Amino acid sequence: MQIIKYPEKSQWKEILCRPVLDLSSLYKSVDAILMDVKERGDKAVIDYSWQFDKVRIKEIAVSHEEIISASNAVSGELKNAIQIASANIKTFHQAQAQTTLESQPSPGVRCWQKSVAIEKVGLYIPGGTAPLISTVLMLAIPASIAGCREVILCSPPNLEGNIHPAILYAADLNGINKIYKVGGAQAIAAMAYGTETIPAVFKIFGPGNQYVQAAKAKVSIENTAIDMPAGPSELAVMADDSAVPAFIASDLLSQAEHGVDSQVLLVTKSEKLINEVEKELQLQLAKLPRKAIASRALENSRMILLRDEDAMVEIINEYAPEHLIIATENYSRLANRIVNAGSVFLGNYSPESAGDYASGTNHTLPTNGHARAYSGVNLDSFMKKISYQELSYEGLKEIGSAIETLAEAEQLQAHKNAVSIRLSKSPKY
Amino acid sequence: MQIIKYPEKSQWKEILCRPVLDLSSLYKSVDAILMDVKERGDKAVIDYSWQFDKVRIKEIAVSHEEIISASNAVSGELKNAIQIASANIKTFHQAQAQTTLESQPSPGVRCWQKSVAIEKVGLYIPGGTAPLISTVLMLAIPASIAGCREVILCSPPNLEGNIHPAILYAADLNGINKIYKVGGAQAIAAMAYGTETIPAVFKIFGPGNQYVQAAKAKVSIENTAIDMPAGPSELAVMADDSAVPAFIASDLLSQAEHGVDSQVLLVTKSEKLINEVEKELQLQLAKLPRKAIASRALENSRMILLRDEDAMVEIINEYAPEHLIIATENYSRLANRIVNAGSVFLGNYSPESAGDYASGTNHTLPTNGHARAYSGVNLDSFMKKISYQELSYEGLKEIGSAIETLAEAEQLQAHKNAVSIRLSKSPKY
Repeated sequence: MQIIKYPEKSQWKEILCRPVLDLSSLYKSVDAILMDVKERGDKAVIDYSWQFDKVRIKEIAVSHEEIISASNAVSGELKNAIQIASANIKTFHQAQAQTTLESQPSPGVRCWQKSVAIEKVGLYIPGGTAPLISTVLMLAIPASIAGCREVILCSPPNLEGNIHPAILYAADLNGINKIYKVGGAQAIAAMAYGTETIPAVFKIFGPGNQYVQAAKAKVSIENTAIDMPAGPSELAVMADDSAVPAFIASDLLSQAEHGVDSQVLLVTKSEKLINEVEKELQLQLAKLPRKAIASRALENSRMILLRDEDAMVEIINEYAPEHLIIATENYSRLANRIVNAGSVFLGNYSPESAGDYASGTNHTLPTNGHARAYSGVNLDSFMKKISYQELSYEGLKEIGSAIETLAEAEQLQAHKNAVSIRLSKSPKY
Repeated sequence: MQIIKYPEKSQWKEILCRPVLDLSSLYKSVDAILMDVKERGDKAVIDYSWQFDKVRIKEIAVSHEEIISASNAVSGELKNAIQIASANIKTFHQAQAQTTLESQPSPGVRCWQKSVAIEKVGLYIPGGTAPLISTVLMLAIPASIAGCREVILCSPPNLEGNIHPAILYAADLNGINKIYKVGGAQAIAAMAYGTETIPAVFKIFGPGNQYVQAAKAKVSIENTAIDMPAGPSELAVMADDSAVPAFIASDLLSQAEHGVDSQVLLVTKSEKLINEVEKELQLQLAKLPRKAIASRALENSRMILLRDEDAMVEIINEYAPEHLIIATENYSRLANRIVNAGSVFLGNYSPESAGDYASGTNHTLPTNGHARAYSGVNLDSFMKKISYQELSYEGLKEIGSAIETLAEAEQLQAHKNAVSIRLSKSPKY
């Protein structure tokens, strides 16, 4: 990691720069896939799976039998872990349920707002050598609590044409039985437009490679909502001498092992801590199976020495990290000053991996600085709010002239008429 | 309006089709404007204002003096109307404030979620012959309640280089003093990237013409969030014989006068109502100043006669209207069955124009079927949620093996290590 001591504020922008993510060069090829799936449906999905995933899919939908035999293929220990994580994720997301918010702005004018589940949602779970079981939980559980009527899941099959049994088990455990063996931009296209086999959904969730993210961006400016924009994963740590260097190093590495474009930052006013973390990093890195990836990610990463806590808070808010660990004596007070972050981990015993898997919070979080304007996935992400109003004759009379005056100022006579005509008639009407 | 009696379900898709909105043909020219403003800043903004708005802007920022003299130029009656509307909008949006949601999924594991204001937001208010005063209120008031630190407003100047005094008055009343005389795609570019004069923001709100909407779509897949995707305005009315035909006609016209691409639907099981509304429409239309626009919008519009309430509810949910008026005897019961709509107006005395101006609900709503997945603008639109977790040693111990098992299944050894290393040390550390 690069060590930067007492940088001038004018240098911050450069210090905080992230690995570049430019999807625009992919849009052309992704557009072609989107259009093709829109036109040829299942046939196009099957062709692209052959082209990109090197597998000939016979049946796009996972069968009931496959789901049952998947359950048998998952070890008891893993099932137990999935159940513990599920229970905690459920508790935290259930606590987010909102009651209908009602108010009476003016006599006879009742207004309220109600959260209603999005009827049809699609979850994307990337493939790869290891199954992203936790991502299934993070998306399926809030979808189920929200009460989405139709929840479908797409994930690319392996070379044998199968989805990892642990993915199927985790999905089935959370009530998802429409699972499709398709990945990449073609999966996003299928969920956005629908095919003969895969139903179209209103909102698509989940991580993925750059093609998946580019496809999500493109459908988001057509007719399908998405959870949030893309970016490589990142972690910032604020720490002082009350932190344990070995713990900090383990956290930095847990983020760095995600991918070569991951980024980690350590922000502190203790030079001693920087030196100790640096040593621990080398010790722990040497033993990691994903050492090569983590090393490259660390090259993009920085330890920043600052003069005081004000500067630490300011630089973190400027960066807007996806994950933030605060391991300082006064972590609660610092946490209150954070305004831009996805998920925050407090104290010495809250590693990022707790939130990645089982503390209960969601791990689908805004990267790439998007924490400035976006929330991580939460119960609300699977719902939308509808507003309601009910006015009595007296209620309309009370605010009628304000409406008429404003409508007239906006030169919208028919808007005014809709009030005038009501007030001109007896309320017995 | 076209009258369609007892359509087969297979015809619904065609009946419910909306006027086509295809922004993609505009993307090329909008991209050029975006890139130019990004590079040349204020100079580009001034050039495009001359090119598109035919006005040479001398000072992009509205001065303090202009704001003060604007207040003197607004009539007492209009000020009073603005204040009544503001008070109601404030009441309804204040009721949406959320407390921090906390839960303890497992002993020693505390998790919570907090809503935090987006620091910098930009509001776009379109120009044109009439000032959209109400849109200023609908965006500025929730931004102020949320506590956004920097709220800026862009609106195109008229040929004399001024923004309408009522816009300035409404903005100033709600604490906005950074107001810029710029419209179109160049305004969106300025707010997304920042110029010498106009600061960059994290999220952009507000309606606009197709260039504005195309620019918002493009910046939304770069680094700036937007309120929601674009589409022409629309209204659906569900009614029975308890409705007043003259009232319904006035509502259909209030929507139709918005623009030639507006759409209105009347859904009923009463043929008598259709006939009476049709007559009233002709009577009221004849007297409207915006008759030409409303007539053309009515050509895109339909009265649909259905057999029963189930079909009425189903077709409305399929259409997902921006505005929905339910003027039936049992409107509360029907309202409970609506799952896709932006804002719902109940009974005979709740015209759409009440919500457009002064009932307190927001009028920035999802059009074009986006109500299936998007909320209208509400307090939450100006905030994002941050999640927090604080684990004790005992808390981490409780869920540690679940994390380790899942991390191992996902082949992320460093994620596992971050837990193991903590649990291997004494909690006194």
